[in-house]
Amino acid sequence: MSRASIELATQLRERAVADGTAYALIESLTTEVGPRLPGSEADARAVAWAKARFEALGYDKVWTEPVTFPKWERRSERAAVVGAHAQPLVITALGGSPAGDVTAELVRFDSIAALEAADPAALRGKLAFVDVPMARSRDGSGYGAAGPVRSRGPSIAARKGAAGYLMRSIGTSPHRVANTGITRFDADVTPIPSAALSLPDADQLTRLLQRGPVQVHLALDVGWNGEYTSQNVIAELTGREAPEEIVLIGGHLDSWDLGTGAVDDASGVGISMAAGHLIAQLPQRPRRTVRVVAFANEEQGLLGARAYADAHGGADVIARHIIGAESDFGAGRIYGFNTSAPADQRATSDAIAEALRPLGIDYLQDQGSPGPDISPLAAKGGAWGWLGQDGSDYFDLHHNADDTLDKVDPDAVAQNTAAYAVFAWLAAESEGGFGSAPKAAP
Amino acid sequence: MSRASIELATQLRERAVADGTAYALIESLTTEVGPRLPGSEADARAVAWAKARFEALGYDKVWTEPVTFPKWERRSERAAVVGAHAQPLVITALGGSPAGDVTAELVRFDSIAALEAADPAALRGKLAFVDVPMARSRDGSGYGAAGPVRSRGPSIAARKGAAGYLMRSIGTSPHRVANTGITRFDADVTPIPSAALSLPDADQLTRLLQRGPVQVHLALDVGWNGEYTSQNVIAELTGREAPEEIVLIGGHLDSWDLGTGAVDDASGVGISMAAGHLIAQLPQRPRRTVRVVAFANEEQGLLGARAYADAHGGADVIARHIIGAESDFGAGRIYGFNTSAPADQRATSDAIAEALRPLGIDYLQDQGSPGPDISPLAAKGGAWGWLGQDGSDYFDLHHNADDTLDKVDPDAVAQNTAAYAVFAWLAAESEGGFGSAPKAAP
Repeated sequence: MSRASIELATQLRERAVADGTAYALIESLTTEVGPRLPGSEADARAVAWAKARFEALGYDKVWTEPVTFPKWERRSERAAVVGAHAQPLVITALGGSPAGDVTAELVRFDSIAALEAADPAALRGKLAFVDVPMARSRDGSGYGAAGPVRSRGPSIAARKGAAGYLMRSIGTSPHRVANTGITRFDADVTPIPSAALSLPDADQLTRLLQRGPVQVHLALDVGWNGEYTSQNVIAELTGREAPEEIVLIGGHLDSWDLGTGAVDDASGVGISMAAGHLIAQLPQRPRRTVRVVAFANEEQGLLGARAYADAHGGADVIARHIIGAESDFGAGRIYGFNTSAPADQRATSDAIAEALRPLGIDYLQDQGSPGPDISPLAAKGGAWGWLGQDGSDYFDLHHNADDTLDKVDPDAVAQNTAAYAVFAWLAAESEGGFGSAPKAAP
Repeated sequence: MSRASIELATQLRERAVADGTAYALIESLTTEVGPRLPGSEADARAVAWAKARFEALGYDKVWTEPVTFPKWERRSERAAVVGAHAQPLVITALGGSPAGDVTAELVRFDSIAALEAADPAALRGKLAFVDVPMARSRDGSGYGAAGPVRSRGPSIAARKGAAGYLMRSIGTSPHRVANTGITRFDADVTPIPSAALSLPDADQLTRLLQRGPVQVHLALDVGWNGEYTSQNVIAELTGREAPEEIVLIGGHLDSWDLGTGAVDDASGVGISMAAGHLIAQLPQRPRRTVRVVAFANEEQGLLGARAYADAHGGADVIARHIIGAESDFGAGRIYGFNTSAPADQRATSDAIAEALRPLGIDYLQDQGSPGPDISPLAAKGGAWGWLGQDGSDYFDLHHNADDTLDKVDPDAVAQNTAAYAVFAWLAAESEGGFGSAPKAAP
């Protein structure tokens, strides 16, 4: 890495921590577009917003690429305990749930293993209630552990004949907000109405069950409805020497519909857009191309990222995707950095780590993973960078109504932007790489 | 005050801080009955609950007295920004609002004075949006300052021809929960649909208004629907020497419908019920009668308290209501004590203050006021006691969906119960009084 490149990285870092562009973008997207459910009317507004913003921010090329997917709609949802302890419940349908109107007795499980072990006779016609708390942690590791409650639970319950599925939200908020998120039904089961309860509501049901049988009425008017074509919105700063080599950063443009998608993921969009914008203001373009992608429909299965990898993931193209990093874990300060580069190709990673250190970022060489929308490229052999954010509060907000602008700290956003700018700049300036090489399909 | 009375107060205090009765009552009421909107099916369940619990807790007499009032119902409510920035809003109808379905432009006011000063021509057919933040404070003083936004704002807007009324919730929660509460329309105006926005939603509208005109669709299916007769539930420990002299403590049994009324006011009911129960376990009854009242329908205008004052507020009876104190400010620790006793009748107050000191309670002789349900008695000349709770977090929960059991600290509840037990015991043991004397009606 040249001394000049390092000096410009220092300039970039110092400008970025004092720059409000990323926060202003987050404010704009969450205020003017609001929630951005894939396939909704707001999805198209978000695409237009991203295109216009990239164009205004000094990028050399801006374009869109289509992403087609089935459209899921939330029209109404409610639930209530019925009978002697009648009372309403705060719930939200899981993405992918069918509509349904069920009144049935609850059968509670404290783990997915317990649900799997259940006798179908005990569950037939009942509402499965899976009540698994999620642990709070800086790195979000509790999310992975709780994940199967949403991803696999509904299918397991449906296969055993349950009439519906209620789960404790995967989240850490003590407030009366339920967390949605996608679920998928296995091909061999008939989908059942499936929803998540706020944490206080899950605790309330558990207390009621200690007193005797509990009947719940669950009424969801939601479901799949046709197909929609959204767009990945892509912008580039064209590399001055090796324009065909690409350093990719980004976030996802869609969000769930309950909040305004401020931490998930207007923040990632704003941080990566602003990082590229800051690089565009340097006296010269980076040696390689810096590409910023606002991915479509991450929430329902990385659909924008898969479309991107299909379009750009040929063996030759993977080798030219030098590295990719996505900001999709909120707006907390970045505490750690790493890349997937193998031990004999760490020189560029080492230089980036050094340039990130003044931001309070440690070089954590045994940690990290590709961001969600980078994972389809990574699966094909693309190298990834990890800029690990403090996610201690992320699951207070993730996929629920509380994901709004007021939860975003402008100073932390500026620190993130500085880190992404330094990372992208140095990765694009370097002659060295991170080991991207096409893998045989698994 | 006799040495024996003081010694028993010490015993009572020490037992109470280690006793879980009050918390168990709060848990039971909020779990088994849940929200207790006046006139709802749950209102009757709450009355039956209170009667059964008093009977089980060792009171000498338990009875109910009817309280009749118009019934207000919340059936459905929603609001959304329409047009170029379309997005849903988190709102809740104000109690007393009529039904209505309005789509109109917002006109924002940052104070009630600004609304009052508005030209009716600018407001006719529009939605008034009154956006006044509430200050957080230990003693809840911010509530009084913001109060007119809910109590007077809708009538002012209606008189100027507004089609509807939206207000920033009177509350301090940064979460996506809106705070309800009663409003009353002046007799000379046609009521208009009126609702409160969560704080993030109010801020969102203010940001959108900075960009240009904003249209909002407000659809409320709510309103008055017939009449209902609930009950004040009353229990006594009959005084051993002066049974006709009454020391009254209590809370209110009703709640708003969005949460489970844990801090407002299952806590007050549990604390006062448990305080009487602990006194009932002493070797002898207090000299005077200790009466515990679970008041009906406080939320819609102190209707249970007014019925009680009508039934028991004759001039002779006021003099025999030695003192009254209500717990209706949550479940925070009590930090201050005072009574309305005049300077020449402070001996009993001084003795109570001394007995409360080990609980961390200061004698704040220039502070305090009667609890809401004591105020009709106080207006007739009844003396009041004040056991001031730390309300710093109260308006995060008050009248919104977050008012649930998990927000109640069992240790703080036990401290409150100890304070109420000591207060009621010593007030009932004393020969002296606090200055209750009938006033001429104003």
